Amino acid sequence: MIRIGILGYGNLGKGVESAICQNPDMELTAVFTRRNPEDLKIRMGNVPVLSDTCLPEMKDKIDVLILCGGSATDLPKQTPEYAKYFNVVDSFDTHAKIPQHFEAVDKAAKENGTIAMISVGWDPGMFSLNRLYGNVILPEGKDYTFWGKGVSQGHSDAIRRIEGVKDAKQYTIPVEAALEAVRSGSNPELTTREKHIRECFVVAKEGADLAKIEETIKTMPNYFADYDTIVHFISEEELSKNHSGIPHGGFVLRSGVTGMDKEHKHLIEYSLKLDSNPEFTASVIVAYARAAYRMNKEGMKGCKTVFDVPPAYLSPLSGEELRKNLL
Amino acid sequence: MIRIGILGYGNLGKGVESAICQNPDMELTAVFTRRNPEDLKIRMGNVPVLSDTCLPEMKDKIDVLILCGGSATDLPKQTPEYAKYFNVVDSFDTHAKIPQHFEAVDKAAKENGTIAMISVGWDPGMFSLNRLYGNVILPEGKDYTFWGKGVSQGHSDAIRRIEGVKDAKQYTIPVEAALEAVRSGSNPELTTREKHIRECFVVAKEGADLAKIEETIKTMPNYFADYDTIVHFISEEELSKNHSGIPHGGFVLRSGVTGMDKEHKHLIEYSLKLDSNPEFTASVIVAYARAAYRMNKEGMKGCKTVFDVPPAYLSPLSGEELRKNLL
Repeated sequence: MIRIGILGYGNLGKGVESAICQNPDMELTAVFTRRNPEDLKIRMGNVPVLSDTCLPEMKDKIDVLILCGGSATDLPKQTPEYAKYFNVVDSFDTHAKIPQHFEAVDKAAKENGTIAMISVGWDPGMFSLNRLYGNVILPEGKDYTFWGKGVSQGHSDAIRRIEGVKDAKQYTIPVEAALEAVRSGSNPELTTREKHIRECFVVAKEGADLAKIEETIKTMPNYFADYDTIVHFISEEELSKNHSGIPHGGFVLRSGVTGMDKEHKHLIEYSLKLDSNPEFTASVIVAYARAAYRMNKEGMKGCKTVFDVPPAYLSPLSGEELRKNLL
Repeated sequence: MIRIGILGYGNLGKGVESAICQNPDMELTAVFTRRNPEDLKIRMGNVPVLSDTCLPEMKDKIDVLILCGGSATDLPKQTPEYAKYFNVVDSFDTHAKIPQHFEAVDKAAKENGTIAMISVGWDPGMFSLNRLYGNVILPEGKDYTFWGKGVSQGHSDAIRRIEGVKDAKQYTIPVEAALEAVRSGSNPELTTREKHIRECFVVAKEGADLAKIEETIKTMPNYFADYDTIVHFISEEELSKNHSGIPHGGFVLRSGVTGMDKEHKHLIEYSLKLDSNPEFTASVIVAYARAAYRMNKEGMKGCKTVFDVPPAYLSPLSGEELRKNLL
């Protein structure tokens, strides 16, 4: 059994908890929290909840610690810190800062003989893998990534900070015509506006100026100004009834050519349609936790990403079984 | 530069030749043939064509030998034989016989310190990888593989062997309604007939009994009897004008659930739409030739499949570049 610890019990931590239940070769040893452990009730009632201050002394009782904090402030500290004691997996997703995160984590992991798997999930993660496979198979071609339909937490938060807004949910939606243009093999150059639309469901405070809220959303730099944005004002009841889920998904496409005269077109398309973004992300993380454990057992150490993991290490099946059943 | 040799100059060998032109870190050292080399003209005029009997003496001049023979009789002999001298890559695609092929090749490669990459292409190959990734991420779910629309060489050959048939081409076509049922998340049980239809374009000999040919095709066991099969009789001109390409493609889907109560559905879909089946297969092979070369440089040896290769080994980019640009 691979003994897993979870640090942080938000949506992602809960997703890891339920994913472990689907993998018979794993067991959840403890959930760690920065809060008072007494105040945290988890769904697997027989698993202890401990303070994060107990982590160093659990060094020999946990094979892989899964870090479920945020990329902005938690993971840049936690991943290098806990890589000193454990094999760790995180879902660090600030693309631009991955190189510096990698450096810090790699140093800690190498010095302490652990495996630290960073930026695991679907983007970065499975989408990155598909960009890589697409690029190596079709070196002359073009990459396209579309996100959605799904909830963007960052954009929803940006709307909630507007004066007069009580609550809000924002969906990122890929433009079907743009997807079709890519699938046609025409290798279009697509602007931000042509690729995605943003649909917002907003609950306004009583007496708020709806026109002003809509204008503020639609002209918000970086978040909305470059997109066609649709704003709906709805009631609090409607928001909680129809928009409480966290669906997401998207598409990675590689369109390229082969042949002595580049005369043959090829399209590789990978897509995800997810009812629960955090539970799917957690499911990817748990598979890479298995790989981290095995790679470390074989003496490997240091920071790794999905690019470094032989796919067979993700599966509980043996090489023979994989070749027989899945190849 | 990675020095590549090609054994066999059919459609696949030609595809490898053009794929090497798209990869600046590779060069084609020679094409080897079982025919008289004088009789073989290749498209890269500056590359020598040599007899396959010269292969052993080229041991130190080639980094990876790509075996472009057939799975029925060529590769079971060639791959273990040439793994004694070279790192090799093949596209062995008889799924049921992969375990025994692996054993024979692994022995030769381990004894001689080479890497032998088998069953590389898209199925087996990229489709296998997607089945594996799908299974590890969503352990509670169902796999679906659809092929087409594309030309099946085996089925076309089977029609050509019927009395009164001059030439023929068979397309395997996935049933759209079945694909949609899978995408809906209903996890349908699908029969052979429900998944694919077979469309045949047949050129009959003069005076042949068309009704009898059609009946023979539609009732042919294994090949057509279990499918809805459409037969068109066309002229030789029409066949060569409209059906001379070798397109193919297909879909791998994984439909599964997550959550404490399995309440969330997820769909992973990977699809290929290929103008040229052999050129795409060759492009995958060439990327894995790079990995074979690198893995061997690092001291690894033995038989490997796509399941064993860390994705980063496929790319000419460094780890830093990959993390920066594709993660």
